[in-house]
Amino acid sequence: MTDLQGTSIIGFHRAGPNGKTLQGFNPATGENLPPVYHSATGSEVDEAVQLAHAAFAVYSQTTGAERARFLRRIAENIEALGDELITRANSETALPEPRLRNETARTCGQLRLFADVVEEGSWVDARIDHGDRDRKPLPKPDVRSMFRPIGPVVVFGASNFPLAFSVAGGDSASAFAAGDPVIVKAHPAHPGTSELVGLAIADAVHGCALPEGVFSLLYDAGNEVALALVKHPLIKAGGFTGSRAGGRALFEAAVCSRPNPIPFYAEMSSINPVVILPGALRERSDQIVSGLHGSVTLGAGQFCTNPGLVLLSEDAHDFVNKLGDLMTNTPEQTMLTPAISASYKNGVSARMNHAGVQTIGGAALFKTDSSQFLASPELAAELFGPSTLVVTYTDRQQLIELINSLEGQLTATIHGSEEDLLEYKEVVRLLETKAGRLVFNGFPTGVEVCHAMVHGGPYPATSEGRSSSVGTRAIYRFARQVCFQDFPNSALPAELQDENPLGIRRLVDGETSIK
Amino acid sequence: MTDLQGTSIIGFHRAGPNGKTLQGFNPATGENLPPVYHSATGSEVDEAVQLAHAAFAVYSQTTGAERARFLRRIAENIEALGDELITRANSETALPEPRLRNETARTCGQLRLFADVVEEGSWVDARIDHGDRDRKPLPKPDVRSMFRPIGPVVVFGASNFPLAFSVAGGDSASAFAAGDPVIVKAHPAHPGTSELVGLAIADAVHGCALPEGVFSLLYDAGNEVALALVKHPLIKAGGFTGSRAGGRALFEAAVCSRPNPIPFYAEMSSINPVVILPGALRERSDQIVSGLHGSVTLGAGQFCTNPGLVLLSEDAHDFVNKLGDLMTNTPEQTMLTPAISASYKNGVSARMNHAGVQTIGGAALFKTDSSQFLASPELAAELFGPSTLVVTYTDRQQLIELINSLEGQLTATIHGSEEDLLEYKEVVRLLETKAGRLVFNGFPTGVEVCHAMVHGGPYPATSEGRSSSVGTRAIYRFARQVCFQDFPNSALPAELQDENPLGIRRLVDGETSIK
Repeated sequence: MTDLQGTSIIGFHRAGPNGKTLQGFNPATGENLPPVYHSATGSEVDEAVQLAHAAFAVYSQTTGAERARFLRRIAENIEALGDELITRANSETALPEPRLRNETARTCGQLRLFADVVEEGSWVDARIDHGDRDRKPLPKPDVRSMFRPIGPVVVFGASNFPLAFSVAGGDSASAFAAGDPVIVKAHPAHPGTSELVGLAIADAVHGCALPEGVFSLLYDAGNEVALALVKHPLIKAGGFTGSRAGGRALFEAAVCSRPNPIPFYAEMSSINPVVILPGALRERSDQIVSGLHGSVTLGAGQFCTNPGLVLLSEDAHDFVNKLGDLMTNTPEQTMLTPAISASYKNGVSARMNHAGVQTIGGAALFKTDSSQFLASPELAAELFGPSTLVVTYTDRQQLIELINSLEGQLTATIHGSEEDLLEYKEVVRLLETKAGRLVFNGFPTGVEVCHAMVHGGPYPATSEGRSSSVGTRAIYRFARQVCFQDFPNSALPAELQDENPLGIRRLVDGETSIK
Repeated sequence: MTDLQGTSIIGFHRAGPNGKTLQGFNPATGENLPPVYHSATGSEVDEAVQLAHAAFAVYSQTTGAERARFLRRIAENIEALGDELITRANSETALPEPRLRNETARTCGQLRLFADVVEEGSWVDARIDHGDRDRKPLPKPDVRSMFRPIGPVVVFGASNFPLAFSVAGGDSASAFAAGDPVIVKAHPAHPGTSELVGLAIADAVHGCALPEGVFSLLYDAGNEVALALVKHPLIKAGGFTGSRAGGRALFEAAVCSRPNPIPFYAEMSSINPVVILPGALRERSDQIVSGLHGSVTLGAGQFCTNPGLVLLSEDAHDFVNKLGDLMTNTPEQTMLTPAISASYKNGVSARMNHAGVQTIGGAALFKTDSSQFLASPELAAELFGPSTLVVTYTDRQQLIELINSLEGQLTATIHGSEEDLLEYKEVVRLLETKAGRLVFNGFPTGVEVCHAMVHGGPYPATSEGRSSSVGTRAIYRFARQVCFQDFPNSALPAELQDENPLGIRRLVDGETSIK
């Protein structure tokens, strides 16, 4: 068993027990979990960033193979924690053990997926345009470019994924893969889980003989550490998953009030509309009700992809009643934190008291019509928890108006027959402009970690709607295009050398070339 | 000859002569150039944006081949303007005719390069991960993604490239190529050139039977139109090349004060450091002096890539004296606008009066030492015009300190021998963190339009330092990743269909596949 120390991890040493305190808390039993944790102080924040900056000089020059070894070592170290990690995470989050085992597997799987990507190496999008000294009127230079690491990255652990979106989660994995040192700000809801994973990473840094500044883990009882990190001049990018208010505050600090703005990827808020078209309703109504109920209530609804809005034909009374019955009979689940639970209860209560909203069955399914929804922007706000709002439409025009009114989303789901897809082509086109991922005849919860995944979407789904935080496309958030003009072959990165020593895919004089 | 009308082009019609007025001005002769131009009114701005929004529904669905045809038609129409365009541009900018002919060729060349890219089609980075219904514990969905157009884009014409960075310049070409309607805010310094090119584009929209909202051109005597455009909820991205103050103001409006921030690419300020290492100084001193002089004074120094800072060994007196002689004997050139000329003169005068700065020869070459430079941040600010500042260093450590002090740059140039490159590896590594393009033994002016070019760099070189505004990589600024999960093959974009009907390069289950 690991002796949890309750202090930040700064490179290869531990911070002092000087800052404000926080403590793990078991939301199922209401008990505090030892040890007491201490926030990093201002000078400890600076120390971690200076170490990361120094480490960048070395880590940015490592090969894909070296980074792959490091990522795989992290995965092995996390797996070696075994039950200790699951038990602690379960105490701190009340998430069931099977879910936490799956999440551990996913976390290690994505570390290994990024290892494969950087070991293979083609992700850098190497491009070579050969020069021509004899071109008229001016000689043509030799121009070569690729993606290079951006610099030290700050990652914010998320409450709802203590493993897959936290200390060694997708943001850290993609930043490490790109060649960037990472400083994680631990989420206060699972400090012990964070320490265990943090030690696993620090051990991998050490075991791979990398500079200690490649990784630090800082605790923060409030938001001082978070803000100090995103404002630090040597931090070059950041990733966050959490509330709209929290994400926006960090975005302001990183982008708007910083003298030199940095890319900041905040995933904040999404109600993940589910559009049910007439053909699907005719053909598979009960199946959709059952799948929707499962998706809405999965993990107490604590997913960014939770379907919080269902657009449904106004005559689908049976659909609504059946969904209401299922929701009413769903056992209550412990939520992640008292704050999330309180916020959910307030949100539910506001909907119950909303004049234009009908409460169906128990307290988690709500229903309103198109004009009421369009007139009440508060109904389009995310309500984090196992609840959803059905908005009825009378015809296609009203459905289009509803979709037009939506903010940016992580996902949009369409249930339809293949004929519906043809007849409602404009609906699909409009949903594409609103979301990063379109799901057909499925449900938005469950985000596959793969090469093609896009987990992102226009604001406020994310603060940077062109990118993805899940899957291998995520690596591009923490990399930048750099170009080398007329460099001697030996001084170029291996990816751009004439011989293509790494055997990667490249674009040479405009043609794709695979060794 | 075209009858210039002096009003904004809104789709297929002309705006009224109602807004505030502006007029072309010949900086060589001091005379106003007819006609009088009228700013777009608020309702005309809204009309252009509404048209662009409506056009997006159609234009975003066009094939690469259709967009290629449109881009090529624009190039043909511009070429058909012939001497009329050159004459008007020369009157409005005082740029010499040969330069304007080259710039026209470059403008048409980049339109055709983007046509080739979208006709070929692989730029969309299509990715397919096949599903597996039998996977345990959960079935694996079929996930496919690609880059899709982002929506209506606003482009700001630049003063210093009346063609290549203006109405049909790189930003417009890349946005059109990605599938986005474009609204250009004409630069007030060349309204007639803008109108000629704007009519050429509108004619191509018409000739290709595209919806009129694909293109509008708006005039603005102040900044009301500019701000109204970037604040408009239906505008989805923007591109700007110009001053730091102007770029920052638009960035604030587009990103910070907008309820839903959009990507905004402002290219603002760069002093393009040139580092001269000892080996190069020994081997090619005179050659470097002559090349540097040419680069500093090219086009009256009115390039974003103008080398405004030279880092040189303190004992290189001969180098400085020779450069001073060349600068002193350079004939004065007419600058683009009275405002640019006045600002340049003020900047030169401030440097002449700077206690720690030595004026060499005439008034355009300045010299200071490392400690003075580090203590005077104003010396690191861009001075737009044919001037440069030599900063001397005593040793490698001082050179590294100087580089560390720099803000983000579009380019960084190294003159060295191959031995220098080995010995000063850390200098090259540091320069990479500061700039988008590294030039070896050359000069930064002259930006090749090709696949590998990166014209961008960390703030304040650009407000978004991971991207490029020149070359085919520029297309990604105006596109976003979109993912389709479990869609029937027939409802997918052609790029993602099983048969690969377009024959493009794709990443299928993690492997690059070329048809």
